[in-house]
Amino acid sequence: MDIFLNPSRQQWAALCRRAEQDNSQIAARVDEIIEMVAREGDAALVALARKIDGVELSALKVSEAEFCEAENKVSEDVKAAIEVAISNITKFHAAQLPHEVSVETQSGVRCIQRPVAIQKVGLYIPGGTAPLFSTVLMLALPAKIAGCREVVLCSPTNKQGKTAAEVLYAAKRCGVTSVYKVGGAQAVAAMAYGTESIPKVNKRFGPGNRYVMLAKQRVSACNTAIDMPAGPSEVMVLADESARAEFVAADLLSQAEHGRDSQAIVVCNSVALAEAVVAEVKRQAAQLSRGEYIYESLEHSRAVVFDEREQMIDFANEYAAEHLIVSMQNEWDVVDKITAAGSIFVGNYSPESAGDYASGTNHTLPTSSWAHSCSGVNIDSFMRKMTIQELSHDGLQGLAETIVTMANAEGLEAHAAAVTVRMKN
Amino acid sequence: MDIFLNPSRQQWAALCRRAEQDNSQIAARVDEIIEMVAREGDAALVALARKIDGVELSALKVSEAEFCEAENKVSEDVKAAIEVAISNITKFHAAQLPHEVSVETQSGVRCIQRPVAIQKVGLYIPGGTAPLFSTVLMLALPAKIAGCREVVLCSPTNKQGKTAAEVLYAAKRCGVTSVYKVGGAQAVAAMAYGTESIPKVNKRFGPGNRYVMLAKQRVSACNTAIDMPAGPSEVMVLADESARAEFVAADLLSQAEHGRDSQAIVVCNSVALAEAVVAEVKRQAAQLSRGEYIYESLEHSRAVVFDEREQMIDFANEYAAEHLIVSMQNEWDVVDKITAAGSIFVGNYSPESAGDYASGTNHTLPTSSWAHSCSGVNIDSFMRKMTIQELSHDGLQGLAETIVTMANAEGLEAHAAAVTVRMKN
Repeated sequence: MDIFLNPSRQQWAALCRRAEQDNSQIAARVDEIIEMVAREGDAALVALARKIDGVELSALKVSEAEFCEAENKVSEDVKAAIEVAISNITKFHAAQLPHEVSVETQSGVRCIQRPVAIQKVGLYIPGGTAPLFSTVLMLALPAKIAGCREVVLCSPTNKQGKTAAEVLYAAKRCGVTSVYKVGGAQAVAAMAYGTESIPKVNKRFGPGNRYVMLAKQRVSACNTAIDMPAGPSEVMVLADESARAEFVAADLLSQAEHGRDSQAIVVCNSVALAEAVVAEVKRQAAQLSRGEYIYESLEHSRAVVFDEREQMIDFANEYAAEHLIVSMQNEWDVVDKITAAGSIFVGNYSPESAGDYASGTNHTLPTSSWAHSCSGVNIDSFMRKMTIQELSHDGLQGLAETIVTMANAEGLEAHAAAVTVRMKN
Repeated sequence: MDIFLNPSRQQWAALCRRAEQDNSQIAARVDEIIEMVAREGDAALVALARKIDGVELSALKVSEAEFCEAENKVSEDVKAAIEVAISNITKFHAAQLPHEVSVETQSGVRCIQRPVAIQKVGLYIPGGTAPLFSTVLMLALPAKIAGCREVVLCSPTNKQGKTAAEVLYAAKRCGVTSVYKVGGAQAVAAMAYGTESIPKVNKRFGPGNRYVMLAKQRVSACNTAIDMPAGPSEVMVLADESARAEFVAADLLSQAEHGRDSQAIVVCNSVALAEAVVAEVKRQAAQLSRGEYIYESLEHSRAVVFDEREQMIDFANEYAAEHLIVSMQNEWDVVDKITAAGSIFVGNYSPESAGDYASGTNHTLPTSSWAHSCSGVNIDSFMRKMTIQELSHDGLQGLAETIVTMANAEGLEAHAAAVTVRMKN
């Protein structure tokens, strides 16, 4: 981890740069998979599981027997932890439910904004060595709270054709309608176009590898919504003399273990603190097992030092971190000046992992500086807002001249005629 | 306009199909323009205006003198109409402002959802024969109400290098920060990458031709947000014996005049009504001047008849119209069953043009069945929601076991360590 001292504004862009992903190599393959699934449906999914994952699937849909088996397999400790997380995530997301807005903008003109649930949503949960069942909670719970009618989930299996027990248990517990044994770009395609087994959904959610992400981008160009674009995970810690190097280092490392592309940045108000953090990172890293990811990730991680507190804040707003930890004096004064971050963790006892699992906030957050313009997943992500208007005869009369004048000025005569035809009697 | 009688569910997909746009022809050109602007900045914009529009621009930024000139040019009638529209749009959008949500999910664990304005937004207003100044109101007013710090607007000029007076007047009146004389895909690229004159913004809004739309899609794949994907405009009218054929026809035509690709569909509960509407469309169309668009648009417009009221509603939800007019008995009973539409117009005196201009609702709405998953532009479009969490020492202690158990079950050891390091003292 290099230390940068008072970098000039010209250097900020380079310091804010993320590890770039070049997807040009895999684009053709992803397009091929999408087309194959759109054309051949279930048969393509079975064939791709055989070819890519070496798995022979007898059925795509997870059976009731498999859900029971999963429930028996998950330990009581994990079940108890899941209950705590469910309780907190539910409380926080239920409190976000939007209300209908109704305004009489002028006499006889009623305008309404009505939130409605997206009817069918699809969740993708990656497989791999560690089953990310926490993401099931983060996506399925808000979907149910929002009122989505159908919530389907796709996740790849292991070589024996089994979905991770924790994923199945969490899915059942959170009210997922059905789970399918499909992974990768083909899962995204299946939920975008529908197959004999898997329903076409209105919006797709969830993380995944580069194939999954690219597939999500591709289908989103063809009339099917996605939660958000996503790149590698990242954390920024703002630290001054109130921070503790030991804690800061642990937070940087919990980011670094996510993957080789992850980025961890600490912004300090002194070189001494930056050096202490870097030394702690080295010390703690040696005790961790996921070294293969951690050391590579630390190569594009960095410590940045600013003399001025305001510069630390400006730099954080320019970076727009997915996770921003504020370990500074007058921490709420800092928080109130943050305009771009996915989720903010305040003080010495709010590690990122609290929000990753169980405090109640969502862990599906904008990366790669998308926090300048996008929110993380929240209850809004599973709803739409429709507007509704009702004008009385007199209400339209009161607006008629305005509408006709504007329509004529825009050269849209039939727009004006739709008003005058109603007013002529 | 063809009439379809009680089509089977298998036929619905075909009847819901929109006029498809094939953008493959223009994709290479759009990419070329985007790259040129990203590389050469202002010089590219001046060169493209010369080449594509035949305009010699001395400056890209609209001057104060030009704003004054525009103000003198706009008629008092139009100014008065704009004031009415501004008042209604402001009332409805201000009522939508979200509030901060704060929940103590468990003792010592505080979770907050905080709405913050997107800092810099860019609006695109197409040029052409009729200046769409109403779209300036629909985008700039919510941007200001949301609290966006910088609102830039790009719009092409006429051959004399002048931006439409109504557009400039509306921009000034709605608090737009600066207006630039740039049109087409190059305007989208300029706001995505920034040039010497034009600031890079965080999110881009506004309609446009196929070049503009494709450019928006392209830049949105590279870390710059857009309001929504957009296709040709469309309306669906649900009509029973309470509807008046004369009004329905006028609404269909006000849609048809938008462009050749526009689609207007009426769903009736009787053949007699469908025939009356089709006859009225023919009669009224003959009186309108934009026949070149209207007749072509009517070719892919249609009347669909269902005996069952519930089928009418289901079909409307499958189509997911940008604009849905409900002229039926017990109209609110119908409205309450609609899950997918951009904006709903209720009863005989709520023409689409009311919402297009002045009732208060936004006219930037999801087309091409995107209403299954997307909202129209509203105050949320100009804001993000950040989450914030603060755990006390005891709050983290109360959650520690849960977090550590889940992190270990996911194989993320450093996530667990970030908690235990804080709890060991």
